[in-house]
Amino acid sequence: MPHKKLEKVFRDPVHNYISVSNQVIYDLIGTSEFQRLRRIKQLGTSSYTFHGAEHSRFAHCLGVYHIAKQITDMFTKNYPEIWNSEENLVTQCAALLHDVGHGAFSHTFEGIFDTDHEAITVSIITSPETEVNAVLRKVAPDFPEKVASVITHQYANQQVVQLISSQIDADRMDYLLRDSYYTGATYGEFDLTRIMRVITPVENGIAFKIQGMHAVEDYIVSRFQMYMQVYFHPASRAMEVLLHQLLKRAKVLYPTQKAYFDTTSPRLVPFFEKHFTLSDYLHLDDGVMTTYFQNWQTHADPILSDLSKAFVNRKLSKSIKYDHEDEQDLAILRDIVEKIGFDKTYYTAIHSNFDLPYDLYRPEIKSPRTQIEIMQKDGTLTELSELSSLVKSLTGTTHGDSRFYFPREILNPDTLFKAEQEAFTSYIKNDHFLGKKGIESK
Amino acid sequence: MPHKKLEKVFRDPVHNYISVSNQVIYDLIGTSEFQRLRRIKQLGTSSYTFHGAEHSRFAHCLGVYHIAKQITDMFTKNYPEIWNSEENLVTQCAALLHDVGHGAFSHTFEGIFDTDHEAITVSIITSPETEVNAVLRKVAPDFPEKVASVITHQYANQQVVQLISSQIDADRMDYLLRDSYYTGATYGEFDLTRIMRVITPVENGIAFKIQGMHAVEDYIVSRFQMYMQVYFHPASRAMEVLLHQLLKRAKVLYPTQKAYFDTTSPRLVPFFEKHFTLSDYLHLDDGVMTTYFQNWQTHADPILSDLSKAFVNRKLSKSIKYDHEDEQDLAILRDIVEKIGFDKTYYTAIHSNFDLPYDLYRPEIKSPRTQIEIMQKDGTLTELSELSSLVKSLTGTTHGDSRFYFPREILNPDTLFKAEQEAFTSYIKNDHFLGKKGIESK
Amino acid sequence: MPHKKLEKVFRDPVHNYISVSNQVIYDLIGTSEFQRLRRIKQLGTSSYTFHGAEHSRFAHCLGVYHIAKQITDMFTKNYPEIWNSEENLVTQCAALLHDVGHGAFSHTFEGIFDTDHEAITVSIITSPETEVNAVLRKVAPDFPEKVASVITHQYANQQVVQLISSQIDADRMDYLLRDSYYTGATYGEFDLTRIMRVITPVENGIAFKIQGMHAVEDYIVSRFQMYMQVYFHPASRAMEVLLHQLLKRAKVLYPTQKAYFDTTSPRLVPFFEKHFTLSDYLHLDDGVMTTYFQNWQTHADPILSDLSKAFVNRKLSKSIKYDHEDEQDLAILRDIVEKIGFDKTYYTAIHSNFDLPYDLYRPEIKSPRTQIEIMQKDGTLTELSELSSLVKSLTGTTHGDSRFYFPREILNPDTLFKAEQEAFTSYIKNDHFLGKKGIESK
Amino acid sequence: MPHKKLEKVFRDPVHNYISVSNQVIYDLIGTSEFQRLRRIKQLGTSSYTFHGAEHSRFAHCLGVYHIAKQITDMFTKNYPEIWNSEENLVTQCAALLHDVGHGAFSHTFEGIFDTDHEAITVSIITSPETEVNAVLRKVAPDFPEKVASVITHQYANQQVVQLISSQIDADRMDYLLRDSYYTGATYGEFDLTRIMRVITPVENGIAFKIQGMHAVEDYIVSRFQMYMQVYFHPASRAMEVLLHQLLKRAKVLYPTQKAYFDTTSPRLVPFFEKHFTLSDYLHLDDGVMTTYFQNWQTHADPILSDLSKAFVNRKLSKSIKYDHEDEQDLAILRDIVEKIGFDKTYYTAIHSNFDLPYDLYRPEIKSPRTQIEIMQKDGTLTELSELSSLVKSLTGTTHGDSRFYFPREILNPDTLFKAEQEAFTSYIKNDHFLGKKGIESK
Repeated sequence: MPHKKLEKVFRDPVHNYISVSNQVIYDLIGTSEFQRLRRIKQLGTSSYTFHGAEHSRFAHCLGVYHIAKQITDMFTKNYPEIWNSEENLVTQCAALLHDVGHGAFSHTFEGIFDTDHEAITVSIITSPETEVNAVLRKVAPDFPEKVASVITHQYANQQVVQLISSQIDADRMDYLLRDSYYTGATYGEFDLTRIMRVITPVENGIAFKIQGMHAVEDYIVSRFQMYMQVYFHPASRAMEVLLHQLLKRAKVLYPTQKAYFDTTSPRLVPFFEKHFTLSDYLHLDDGVMTTYFQNWQTHADPILSDLSKAFVNRKLSKSIKYDHEDEQDLAILRDIVEKIGFDKTYYTAIHSNFDLPYDLYRPEIKSPRTQIEIMQKDGTLTELSELSSLVKSLTGTTHGDSRFYFPREILNPDTLFKAEQEAFTSYIKNDHFLGKKGIESK
Repeated sequence: MPHKKLEKVFRDPVHNYISVSNQVIYDLIGTSEFQRLRRIKQLGTSSYTFHGAEHSRFAHCLGVYHIAKQITDMFTKNYPEIWNSEENLVTQCAALLHDVGHGAFSHTFEGIFDTDHEAITVSIITSPETEVNAVLRKVAPDFPEKVASVITHQYANQQVVQLISSQIDADRMDYLLRDSYYTGATYGEFDLTRIMRVITPVENGIAFKIQGMHAVEDYIVSRFQMYMQVYFHPASRAMEVLLHQLLKRAKVLYPTQKAYFDTTSPRLVPFFEKHFTLSDYLHLDDGVMTTYFQNWQTHADPILSDLSKAFVNRKLSKSIKYDHEDEQDLAILRDIVEKIGFDKTYYTAIHSNFDLPYDLYRPEIKSPRTQIEIMQKDGTLTELSELSSLVKSLTGTTHGDSRFYFPREILNPDTLFKAEQEAFTSYIKNDHFLGKKGIESK
Repeated sequence: MPHKKLEKVFRDPVHNYISVSNQVIYDLIGTSEFQRLRRIKQLGTSSYTFHGAEHSRFAHCLGVYHIAKQITDMFTKNYPEIWNSEENLVTQCAALLHDVGHGAFSHTFEGIFDTDHEAITVSIITSPETEVNAVLRKVAPDFPEKVASVITHQYANQQVVQLISSQIDADRMDYLLRDSYYTGATYGEFDLTRIMRVITPVENGIAFKIQGMHAVEDYIVSRFQMYMQVYFHPASRAMEVLLHQLLKRAKVLYPTQKAYFDTTSPRLVPFFEKHFTLSDYLHLDDGVMTTYFQNWQTHADPILSDLSKAFVNRKLSKSIKYDHEDEQDLAILRDIVEKIGFDKTYYTAIHSNFDLPYDLYRPEIKSPRTQIEIMQKDGTLTELSELSSLVKSLTGTTHGDSRFYFPREILNPDTLFKAEQEAFTSYIKNDHFLGKKGIESK
Repeated sequence: MPHKKLEKVFRDPVHNYISVSNQVIYDLIGTSEFQRLRRIKQLGTSSYTFHGAEHSRFAHCLGVYHIAKQITDMFTKNYPEIWNSEENLVTQCAALLHDVGHGAFSHTFEGIFDTDHEAITVSIITSPETEVNAVLRKVAPDFPEKVASVITHQYANQQVVQLISSQIDADRMDYLLRDSYYTGATYGEFDLTRIMRVITPVENGIAFKIQGMHAVEDYIVSRFQMYMQVYFHPASRAMEVLLHQLLKRAKVLYPTQKAYFDTTSPRLVPFFEKHFTLSDYLHLDDGVMTTYFQNWQTHADPILSDLSKAFVNRKLSKSIKYDHEDEQDLAILRDIVEKIGFDKTYYTAIHSNFDLPYDLYRPEIKSPRTQIEIMQKDGTLTELSELSSLVKSLTGTTHGDSRFYFPREILNPDTLFKAEQEAFTSYIKNDHFLGKKGIESK
């Protein structure tokens, strides 16, 4: 009577229980490349704004796998005529591994060191030296390539591709729910259960039955709200700006101080040298990076040490919104910052965040999106925004803002620079740079 | 009309909004010693078992502050005749700072390096070189000492002491709710709102009005359940055992390989040398430690490198329960492990976890507990377990278990050591070491 | 020490604890007119679609009071210069009593018997024979009139009026959360805590600080979604249609069968006679009405008995959507229904449900809405839809649909009426009446 | 492609979605006997204490069905060798129908009119005149008897019986979660998902795998807490006492006033006459009963009218706890009540509520309980309380209290009866009758 089938259960606060009963999946989770995701925060610098959001990419990847598993199991049971159950494993593996190439503070890191987490994901999956590849190879010699091709969208079966990567996919569904849960920002919640009931494979992709249209609509709106409220939060972007300046400064200093960086931050050296292996990349994580920043706090260069301290101790710069057409005029503010004594190259910055909440399929553009299709009772498909005025209002237009960052001290009372400070604030109204209008009114 | 009073709001998934309107509290949060808590996980090795529980001590400390603030505000409003509102700030500061001395993987670290996080907490609060001390000093010269004395239980006003440290205090109430939320183990939930409505200051401490007795009872039961289900989880303890062995091995190797450790793990050196400053201590965190373990993976010593890899990649040993009187007999199992090829010093271990869920005040013992008092309608106090049979059943007896850890490989099929493996398992039944009984039956 | 201040606590699943410490409020809750609300379901026929939504108007009214109390308490504390705390009680009483005149299945009942629940609310508050009036009179002789004038929007202080009745008021905030909780449709959730933090009294009304703009936006979207998903659900409207037909039939039969109705449904007689007192009205509730419908199940009139049975046992008719311009053409379907053997007057119906999710203030129209104002950091006010593209997309346009109801049997396979049935369905595609287009294609 | 399989989904706030895909189940839900459960509150008089708890037995029965379906589906999939999937339908039908014989305010009603809701449940299932029976008969001629025998515990397969009725069954699991959700008392929550993962059929019943022991323990504790906090709440019992007195009075008056009761409360007449049919019983529900009580408010008998008003308007009597051995001495209090002017027969009462939270199987007693068995890894079974000290503390002992009810007015200040009132209160301390001790101290 005692069962001996493999079943490993992960307690997950978002999905309650995540169950793994396939040895391949279980082995993938055990690889060093996947375990490394425990050491990389899902939200990067956002955890400095939303202190509760300290969850890792490990948790997120498990969640994506879980959603993909639920859907492929349901497809297998309910749609044998149109869904090929041999796709289940490749779908679940791709779901689990879709982010395995993510690194510490990916976005900023990539900007500075010209890495590409998607290419690295593919590399981890397909390079014979990784544990992930070894596990996948045991399924079939070409299995690693198949999994990788799902992630690069080249996989022939578009049903599989869309489950992993489209405007409503397992990845997005997990991160919205998870980031919502961990930040405490309830905007990200939507009815996952309902969506998983109405999702249905169609000839060349996936669709959603009309009975669940409102759940899909709510998902689009929730996603939009999470972008506006959480992902684009000005304070998180201040940390990102800081990180960017810090790494930029280190990169500038490196050529003349190789020994210093070799001692205090050895694993970054290959990146300073623009010459890194996959193994170098996999040695980095949030802890390693932050250890290095802590080391740099005592560096003789006042900019490097100051920025390191600011990052380690979360000393954020302030920011104001500006309109794109006024970007040039920010030079006025930059000059005042410099006058007050800050190097404007490292102590001011602009940061733009824009998202396109939903778009139609536009074959003419470079990477066209797969639009969301709703299946009517008679089987015909209708594009989502035709049925939802809420979604229509979000379709095809980007949302977000551009912000100018400057030292917090500029706004503190100070007798020495009182005139400069007043000049500075005279260009601002309700946290917004007045731009040309403000300048002309002088 | 636009208000300019300080009010900083932290979005918290457990308490929804945590509001700070006192400059002292706000400044304390901004100190480097407090920000450092962002880099230390609340649950240490448990996050390797409950992957969702990656929350930091930073979040927990904010939560304890929040609960203390709610209670002191309510006391100020409702009990002016018995609660002195001048205690509000010292209570809130002690709440916020009660764990500021915690370090990376505290429990294990303390065992190996003989540190004491409570003494360090006091030190951070009272040493003139810390930022925390500077902030507190501004309130009054003796204010740091006052806050510290709350934490060491020396503070004269026992109402304040009990709010921060007793069998039902702000600390425990936050960590139960928070650990419950982040692990996904719902056992830790209880009715905090109710408890905060019925808590009341009495002459020499705090009590709870009878209308909330069941909420208090539920809190005790929830706490018990969290210990049994989460805090004492065998897998987390396997990580703790591993960490212990790893640090023990490093310590053994250090005297002959100082240069190696100086390069790969410089900030641990003061601890190997048994000669560390407060500043040395504050430089350590989860990220620094894990960075060092990653470095050690390539050390020539097979034990150090193997244990490092096991920790970094979460390769857990297995365990069985044993009864205290059979502890000596575990030597039999240890010898088999050695025979199969593992150094028994580093590859077997015992680990005991016991908790006393609730106890009466026993003046005769060393650190007597403050028992929980329930206030009847006429104002008389009755000790909790007299009113609750559930609590009575948990009073005065410890719960937990002792486990023997050994390499997972012992249980894997293996032709070479088949006989030894069979011998090993013959001493086990339902994950329990049979002990003397099993031995005699041979 | 034992406190003896009045404090009555109601455990509420939506707001957790609702606390009453004012004797006037407590006495109002105890009146027979208010207790009667326990016997009237908040959602009327919707509880036949969402079986969990059996909550009463009693619970909702307590909830509205609770929100109003939280807000007025906060206004009193934070905005003494612009909010007059003498308005607290009138606001809270109006909040509690705003729905006290609601009756059983109000909407349908009013359509048939020409009653008006708002007028009756005023009447309950101002008529000297009610218990509610007696309680209010004790505050001041003109206090009942003051409370009533808040409900009729005549009250001078528009801050008070808008808290009770505007596009974002205590009433709507409670019912969205409550209906969401009880139906299980999570769409209605929004961040009440945040909204209650940013709501602020302004000179001639209320506004919301910019930091909470997204919470207000989310509230508007949530409200829209609840209308589309819950309040306008076709099945609930089928029950409403049924109820309408049933009461219409009874009204037709009454003049010739007075004795019958006097015995089986005495408390409805004053309404059949178009001659009812406030006391007559207060004797009706869901239980009384349903008792009468149960009695009518055995009436000799086949239509009355059949409709009664259908209502009591929830036998719903089916429906299809139609476009307004095709309304005339529904005659074709009605005739087929009649041909198959159903009296088309009682067995077909049209039902339209439209809502205007949000609108600007338009002084030119009859009852202009108060638009939602967002307060910028410098104190200036901006209308919500100027800041939110989501809200803009919902502004000024109604949403909903018109449906044609017909007997479920029409769609059941039947050899006798096969031809008629096929004719009927040939006019329908995806639950939508094809109208002219369909007719012409014949 | 469009699927046409029956699948009816009920949105449920406790279980999210309840899905019905079996025509028999769907038809049973549509019967008039089952629809009637919409008109009967799950918690009877408790909804007068917990105003949120207005949910019906209809919702509960759907929930029990849902849990039974989940379990039987899982058994079918995982335990084909020990669970016979032909039992699925009988299990699900029994789950759905287990409470179909419940009536309005069952407990009190049964006490007065000597009805038995379990016998009526059987009758509804097996009597050829019911719609329920007609649906069941279509499955097989003996199917109604089979379903009924599950409910009466006679069914041969004890696995089925225990799923529906044991110390941890689908019924209890649903009502705890549901009552918890609707009252807002969170004590009733437990980990249903976990329990449904570890439940397992064994030879002569059901058991729970050791991995879920703590979830089962938590369920027992939660159930205990719900009894203490919700089901035995003194205010709900005051309503029950009132209802009892009211019906008792009506029964006394009936023989001399038949015409009056025939007009005002015709459907109660068969019960006054002690001569009722199943159909008579099925005509009663909460609404009908309350309609009658409203009618009786104007009866000439001052006791009947007063008690009716008290019930309709929720005017509760007060109560104190007393010890069993002091029951006789309550006569003293009763006499004072009478002296102050209340008929002690109708205005005082005692009410005892005791529950046995958990018990072992005791074959010697009348209806022995099936104890809860935990399955060890090797398949052996261990009784729950041997593994859980919490459960052990609750095993075999009843919990609850006995209360004496008396008019609220006794405690109101009154110059006329000041002496009597003081005498009365002199026997009370902390809401507890002092009994002999108090009497002797005089």
